[in-house]
Amino acid sequence: MTNTIKKIGVFTSGGDSPGMNAAIRAVVRTALYHNIEVVGIRRGYEGMINAEFQDMDRKSVANIIQRGGTILKTARSQAFLTPEGRQIAYNNLKKINVDALVAIGGDGTFTGAKVFGEEFDMPILGLPGTIDNDLFGTDFTIGYDTAINTVINAVDKIRDTAESHDRLFIVEVMGRDCGLIALRSGIGVGAESILIPETKTDINAIIHRLEISRKDKSSKIIMVAEGDDAGGAFEVAEIIKARFPNYDTKVSILGHIQRGGSPTCMDRVLASRVGVAAVEGLLNGERSQMVGLIHGKIAFTSFEQAIKHHVEVNENLLKIVEVLSL
Amino acid sequence: MTNTIKKIGVFTSGGDSPGMNAAIRAVVRTALYHNIEVVGIRRGYEGMINAEFQDMDRKSVANIIQRGGTILKTARSQAFLTPEGRQIAYNNLKKINVDALVAIGGDGTFTGAKVFGEEFDMPILGLPGTIDNDLFGTDFTIGYDTAINTVINAVDKIRDTAESHDRLFIVEVMGRDCGLIALRSGIGVGAESILIPETKTDINAIIHRLEISRKDKSSKIIMVAEGDDAGGAFEVAEIIKARFPNYDTKVSILGHIQRGGSPTCMDRVLASRVGVAAVEGLLNGERSQMVGLIHGKIAFTSFEQAIKHHVEVNENLLKIVEVLSL
Amino acid sequence: MTNTIKKIGVFTSGGDSPGMNAAIRAVVRTALYHNIEVVGIRRGYEGMINAEFQDMDRKSVANIIQRGGTILKTARSQAFLTPEGRQIAYNNLKKINVDALVAIGGDGTFTGAKVFGEEFDMPILGLPGTIDNDLFGTDFTIGYDTAINTVINAVDKIRDTAESHDRLFIVEVMGRDCGLIALRSGIGVGAESILIPETKTDINAIIHRLEISRKDKSSKIIMVAEGDDAGGAFEVAEIIKARFPNYDTKVSILGHIQRGGSPTCMDRVLASRVGVAAVEGLLNGERSQMVGLIHGKIAFTSFEQAIKHHVEVNENLLKIVEVLSL
Amino acid sequence: MTNTIKKIGVFTSGGDSPGMNAAIRAVVRTALYHNIEVVGIRRGYEGMINAEFQDMDRKSVANIIQRGGTILKTARSQAFLTPEGRQIAYNNLKKINVDALVAIGGDGTFTGAKVFGEEFDMPILGLPGTIDNDLFGTDFTIGYDTAINTVINAVDKIRDTAESHDRLFIVEVMGRDCGLIALRSGIGVGAESILIPETKTDINAIIHRLEISRKDKSSKIIMVAEGDDAGGAFEVAEIIKARFPNYDTKVSILGHIQRGGSPTCMDRVLASRVGVAAVEGLLNGERSQMVGLIHGKIAFTSFEQAIKHHVEVNENLLKIVEVLSL
Repeated sequence: MTNTIKKIGVFTSGGDSPGMNAAIRAVVRTALYHNIEVVGIRRGYEGMINAEFQDMDRKSVANIIQRGGTILKTARSQAFLTPEGRQIAYNNLKKINVDALVAIGGDGTFTGAKVFGEEFDMPILGLPGTIDNDLFGTDFTIGYDTAINTVINAVDKIRDTAESHDRLFIVEVMGRDCGLIALRSGIGVGAESILIPETKTDINAIIHRLEISRKDKSSKIIMVAEGDDAGGAFEVAEIIKARFPNYDTKVSILGHIQRGGSPTCMDRVLASRVGVAAVEGLLNGERSQMVGLIHGKIAFTSFEQAIKHHVEVNENLLKIVEVLSL
Repeated sequence: MTNTIKKIGVFTSGGDSPGMNAAIRAVVRTALYHNIEVVGIRRGYEGMINAEFQDMDRKSVANIIQRGGTILKTARSQAFLTPEGRQIAYNNLKKINVDALVAIGGDGTFTGAKVFGEEFDMPILGLPGTIDNDLFGTDFTIGYDTAINTVINAVDKIRDTAESHDRLFIVEVMGRDCGLIALRSGIGVGAESILIPETKTDINAIIHRLEISRKDKSSKIIMVAEGDDAGGAFEVAEIIKARFPNYDTKVSILGHIQRGGSPTCMDRVLASRVGVAAVEGLLNGERSQMVGLIHGKIAFTSFEQAIKHHVEVNENLLKIVEVLSL
Repeated sequence: MTNTIKKIGVFTSGGDSPGMNAAIRAVVRTALYHNIEVVGIRRGYEGMINAEFQDMDRKSVANIIQRGGTILKTARSQAFLTPEGRQIAYNNLKKINVDALVAIGGDGTFTGAKVFGEEFDMPILGLPGTIDNDLFGTDFTIGYDTAINTVINAVDKIRDTAESHDRLFIVEVMGRDCGLIALRSGIGVGAESILIPETKTDINAIIHRLEISRKDKSSKIIMVAEGDDAGGAFEVAEIIKARFPNYDTKVSILGHIQRGGSPTCMDRVLASRVGVAAVEGLLNGERSQMVGLIHGKIAFTSFEQAIKHHVEVNENLLKIVEVLSL
Repeated sequence: MTNTIKKIGVFTSGGDSPGMNAAIRAVVRTALYHNIEVVGIRRGYEGMINAEFQDMDRKSVANIIQRGGTILKTARSQAFLTPEGRQIAYNNLKKINVDALVAIGGDGTFTGAKVFGEEFDMPILGLPGTIDNDLFGTDFTIGYDTAINTVINAVDKIRDTAESHDRLFIVEVMGRDCGLIALRSGIGVGAESILIPETKTDINAIIHRLEISRKDKSSKIIMVAEGDDAGGAFEVAEIIKARFPNYDTKVSILGHIQRGGSPTCMDRVLASRVGVAAVEGLLNGERSQMVGLIHGKIAFTSFEQAIKHHVEVNENLLKIVEVLSL
């Protein structure tokens, strides 16, 4: 344990995700529990450069565990991509005696943290805050569980109208490079097909499935991750309409509602656990790692691995879609 | 009271709306209470022509009051627009001894009901089932209250991310000819501006408001009804982006989630009340009217008036947007 | 218009209700719109006596329209019941130059406001903030619509388990003197019977209804207002269990969840409208009145009438319970 | 693979849990996918004895994945505890040529399944359907995730009013022998203290924590599992009120809402995965085991182990409560 850490800075960066506030709360409370000061850095790396700091006490994080978004706000920073920007950030942190950092965000955040940790003598640990679940080194990221529940609740509403009209809905969810939101929420709503970037989309197979399931089901849902190789929901709808001109096919793009909302219990607990572990990890000398949960246990993974390693799609999940949708 | 009514047919037609099931339940239960048989007609006028009938008993409508959509399904019918189609529909109804009808839907539904009631000796009463709230003769339509709550819950989620990123969101809601969903939900989310078809949209005024409110608010919502004269959300966003190129402006089209979901208490109570009143109205000899609630009391309005009369936008609501958003 | 009002105080008092924050926001924003200062008084009359004041600007009420509870907190005050307490409160208000007040609460709040307005030269208007809907002079109170939706959402969950087990549930909701929460939510969940303080409860009739509906329905809900003359849910359950010993009868007391939650759209719009009207009313010289909505229009009712007049139970609502539950 | 299985029976038993319908759907669809017939057994073991059978096809399980409760209903059976009852059940199953069973429920269900599988030549696999998460051999049980989210959503509402009034709430959740609902939901709501049957409750420590946290927090939540050794919420409240007579302490018993509601995405996916695996397991000759997920992978555990092995409380979760609540 290095006893030199007396003040920790905490910030959120990149796209926001539900549970970030629970993570901030855990970091602040744990630091105070260990008699360490905490400063909140607003707007991520951009705020570090602009010296947007605020002291955090127990009250600063009261009554926020249930709130979506991030009370520290978030931003993307061009300036932090430059050595000059990072130097200013470091100087600002030193001016207020910050000894260590907890960064909450996704791969962009950790890329910045990795570089910053290498350039300066600043211990940094990261918490996986992204709805995409695309980080290696944790079973789930903070916000993913909330996002998939937001999706299924929205699609449950869409199904009401799909059932009433015997319609086919093509629903597009977030996921430019990663289909995990589409995959689990697609299973959760009983989608006929799930189109994700990780697998080659076979439109003919989808059309074949639609044909054989027509007589048994009045409503149908096809779930599309925005980054699928067949295109987004509108492109998929065009292909299907061309083949089934008489079928009543509609498109729904769920969009930004997927980033918000009160976090689920799992996201709050995950955020709380990794938040506690990050502060304790810093006190134990850990640095330049992401703190995640693997098989329900706290696990540290280097930033490098967390970003670069490919998160594999669970083949079993793909297979059960085929079994259950017919 | 005409004692000749022994069997009532009930159906839903046009776009579905939350609370239609509660209305079906009320019609069925009230008829049975008065010892009248009830038949459910599936898929509206189309099902009338195709003789898609199902007998309804108490169990048929058990445990449906809370469900979105319509268990009788709905459709639009080209065939019913022709005299031949309507004759077939009438013959089918007579074959199973239907004496009277309750039609649940919006203006298209009532237009059909009006013609049908004039051509044949068939008492028909209508229930206002549409999320648009665009029918004259009722304070609210069945589904409107649910739809505006769906909108505000979605925008509350969007605001989480808007707040975290200091963004402006242009949110498009349903309403091709009618801005009532946008108006009330816009007030409900504290929108900066609400753009509706009933009023001339003044983009310069909107931009002016954005300028003066910039320093006081980190997130901003502009609510646009899809039929606004300035265009939909994407068109409005283009104009605003051109003026504020540095502002982080995003678009969200809420789409079909607005038609679904479990109905609110107000929609369930409204549907129950007008459903009871429709059956009792038929027994009392009423016909060719919509049954609504005006000032909390049951009111009958001729189909002609219900469809044609303009539903006025409450000027006070428009005015308070201006006061509250600054 | 009296031009003498330059500073308004706003406070919440008594039991909290969802929508109070939307009302506070409307009062603050409207005052600022008219270039009037606003001070928030924390913890109602108690805070007036303890001089718990905070200046309010546009930012103070940003992002609160969707929040349950009250940011100004609320309390009950023994001290304000005494002339000495009220004198201190008045002196404190005068010290900070408060010219007029907006009080948000229920009958206890307005009783205090009425006395205070009579004793001192202080214009006060009230906003109906209570989940009970028991105030004369407004169609609905702020929070009522949210409360009944909270109830039906809870009972929808209870019905899942009731259906699965063929159970009878006795559900107790708030309402010591007023059965309006039980009445509308009871219709909303399709309750077999609704027991409210305003009507004499006939247990034999309830048992009779249970007997005849047993074969048609697998689950049953009886809704009881806590102040019913037959007792609360436990008492009612005892009577029913004695009569149907083999029936699986369970009790659920919904309790304090009924006071919380994000306000519905109707509550937010209602709160916004009466909040605007209260400030404008003060500027127009109105005083010692509650601002409500009657038939969708702003209406002023003297505190005396608002408190004392009996809110009648809608007989039609009672009647449709009988029709629909069989 | 034994090719002798041509017809599978599926049933739910014991207390219902959200996700049971998703499990039934998965069993039915997977069996049909493998060209195996499926019969639904209503009311669990009781229905087996009473021959309450219904054939299941693809449509039988359409549009149920999102529904709470169980469409097959559930019951507890005294008759099945006797050898005679089980013999009748077996005979009934044989009459309709049922070759194998999938039992969805908790430890009572599996105890019955174990005995039945030993007495007769009937392959049975079990799915963990209970909100309590008290089964060995699976990371989570079907319904647990939904239950803890129902709890945190209810407590979020309670917190609104707790915050407004500076109150302490003692919230009682389900868990006669198992504190896992209390533990995770307690962390999810940021409870001051969590009282569970697995640990000795130290009231003095709780009171000490309340004392030191009083100045930093306006609202406080203590979460109590119904089976805690200190008693339920009312008993705990009495002790605390005796010590803090001036503190505004309230009790809320969440009760049966915890069993209902639309299942979360995690519960739907879990139910789908183990449902598929159970049918495929039967085809592969597995029997007398529960199918769960351990570390995200399908795992078979003998009924004996699933029931008897103690599910340990995660010590880390207990520890972070202490860190975060101060």
